[in-house]
Amino acid sequence: MRFTINKDQFLKGLVIAGHAIGNKAPNHALVCFKLDLTSRGLEITGSDAVIAIWTLVPNSLNDKEIIRNASQGAALLNAHVLTEVVRKFEGTELSFEIIDNAVAKIDDGKSTFKLNCMPVAEYPEIDLERTGNSFNLMCSDLKALVSQTAFAALDKETRPILTAINLKAEAGKLTATATDSARLSRKSISVDPELRFSVNVPAKILTDVVNLLEGSDEVEIAPSADKILFSFGTTLVRSSLIPGEYPAVSNNIIPSNFNYYLDVNASQLLNAVDRVSVLVTDRASVVKLSMSDDQVEVSSSSDQTGSGVERLTTIQYTGERLDIAFNALFVSQAVRALGSEDVRMSFVGEMKPFVIRNPKDDSVVELITPMRTR
Amino acid sequence: MRFTINKDQFLKGLVIAGHAIGNKAPNHALVCFKLDLTSRGLEITGSDAVIAIWTLVPNSLNDKEIIRNASQGAALLNAHVLTEVVRKFEGTELSFEIIDNAVAKIDDGKSTFKLNCMPVAEYPEIDLERTGNSFNLMCSDLKALVSQTAFAALDKETRPILTAINLKAEAGKLTATATDSARLSRKSISVDPELRFSVNVPAKILTDVVNLLEGSDEVEIAPSADKILFSFGTTLVRSSLIPGEYPAVSNNIIPSNFNYYLDVNASQLLNAVDRVSVLVTDRASVVKLSMSDDQVEVSSSSDQTGSGVERLTTIQYTGERLDIAFNALFVSQAVRALGSEDVRMSFVGEMKPFVIRNPKDDSVVELITPMRTR
Repeated sequence: MRFTINKDQFLKGLVIAGHAIGNKAPNHALVCFKLDLTSRGLEITGSDAVIAIWTLVPNSLNDKEIIRNASQGAALLNAHVLTEVVRKFEGTELSFEIIDNAVAKIDDGKSTFKLNCMPVAEYPEIDLERTGNSFNLMCSDLKALVSQTAFAALDKETRPILTAINLKAEAGKLTATATDSARLSRKSISVDPELRFSVNVPAKILTDVVNLLEGSDEVEIAPSADKILFSFGTTLVRSSLIPGEYPAVSNNIIPSNFNYYLDVNASQLLNAVDRVSVLVTDRASVVKLSMSDDQVEVSSSSDQTGSGVERLTTIQYTGERLDIAFNALFVSQAVRALGSEDVRMSFVGEMKPFVIRNPKDDSVVELITPMRTR
Repeated sequence: MRFTINKDQFLKGLVIAGHAIGNKAPNHALVCFKLDLTSRGLEITGSDAVIAIWTLVPNSLNDKEIIRNASQGAALLNAHVLTEVVRKFEGTELSFEIIDNAVAKIDDGKSTFKLNCMPVAEYPEIDLERTGNSFNLMCSDLKALVSQTAFAALDKETRPILTAINLKAEAGKLTATATDSARLSRKSISVDPELRFSVNVPAKILTDVVNLLEGSDEVEIAPSADKILFSFGTTLVRSSLIPGEYPAVSNNIIPSNFNYYLDVNASQLLNAVDRVSVLVTDRASVVKLSMSDDQVEVSSSSDQTGSGVERLTTIQYTGERLDIAFNALFVSQAVRALGSEDVRMSFVGEMKPFVIRNPKDDSVVELITPMRTR
């Protein structure tokens, strides 16, 4: 195996495949990239137990030669070391050669590195075959589905299924749902009514996929019984699914009859919540909204440090007097995810889950369970 | 105690005094700032066991009123909470009032905070009196003394005296020395020949002082038997000294007769060392310089990952063939501290400490003990 390659394109491929390299590799070969030089170009594969990424550095790009002097072959190289070595080269072109199946010699005419290889046979087989149907989505749609929901997924492994985002296609809608059981985030987009599936994809992997979409317009998605594939550009991402029935997929979980409505400028609400939550330093910041006809206040207090209160001015409130307390982070993340200038908060009652929406976009809903006031 | 104050100037004072607030306060009152409103303005004091900072927010600055509606008094308030609350206010002016000696009410007309106070009597007495002689230094001189040496001080408490920078005035020279026993950094400047003292000041505190000098031209320094005071602008910093005899203060520790000289472009050396040290991921990166008449190479190798080598081009080498190995971080920090385009490395022999200097400035010397090559 031998080739001369454009440094920036090589590094780009390594960085893409590097998203699959975990800190705790379940198998010593999985700290490595598998490099395959084929007639198509340089194929780079990285994987761990849950995710696999395959990407191609093509022989040429926009009529510009990327790879030359190529002689086919394969090699396994430590992913972190290879990436950092390639990143640090100053030259624009690198020559790469496997010597005695044991060492990769990489050279830019100024620096020379000899990196130890592992036997190629030790790399596991990775099933990247598409099974079942696939469909295409605009990248911007997949980004919206993920970025408006992923923050609500559980970030601990205490209930693995809650670390997933549930993607469900039914009746012409593709819906993403994430919940950590104290809050829920849901976003829908319109799709082909023929499409029908429900899969639980780790939220972390979906976030990685979205970050990798940069520069692509469309992504092809192929969900099947045990995996989901995303292909875009010259990259393919495979994610394992989290088995089990996703909770809270029913539409009934979102209340539809409310007794109180607060319309408020999003950034004023965010600033007030951020300011008063400074006082709570020891645990999840509990912030209280006190709403009545003539005024709406955001406040918090702590026995240790003191109390803070701020009156909101750009508001419209409909309903009786209501006090409701919540985790400041949950409300801030939900409001930011909506990305709108104004938000509407709808309440059923003091201890009932409440809803935050963008009044101009009903495709996203954020549901939050209140906390007890003291 | 009551006052109305310009928010930015209040915050500036809190941030300055905040440099004295440690994560582990040795006394529960020391998590607080002491605020004293006097005829001069608002005095803010922060301290821990080793450092104390006193700063004044004056009543007016450049004919602009900073403090008004003042009624004198004192208060103790949690330093972190007060700073973050003041930082988050949106208004340009804050009103501050102590109520019942128990609560500080702070208001910008929009948000209102009530912060718990501690009894003022619990704050320890802090001796900020100047004893002994003092002298003035340009801030740029103190910055140079500290920034060109502090990195060589020990960053663990295993030998407390090595966490200090020794400041010694003698025979018209003020010399700063820092060493962790494997390397030494020394910088001198000219001072009044009458000046004579030797003190060990924690390197961390000197670095803080240097960071606080921003905006001042001159600093007054008053070293005495048990403390050193730095005053600049409306701020006073007091540091305890580290008792004991500082090692390696003699000039003889720096070799003066060398057998090998390497003159090299600083950034080429830094880049080469940085590049080859990528391979060593498990411990301090050992990098080797191999020097001879016709070529100079920087290299490193690791049984696990492989090897890297780079030939330096912008060099002038004088001497027999020599291989010398060193901690990559030590050489990088020393070369950076010199801040020059070219550096001269002078060697006595393979296992003898070597010296790095700026060939155009003999006021700084960096001494490094080599490591064994394998």
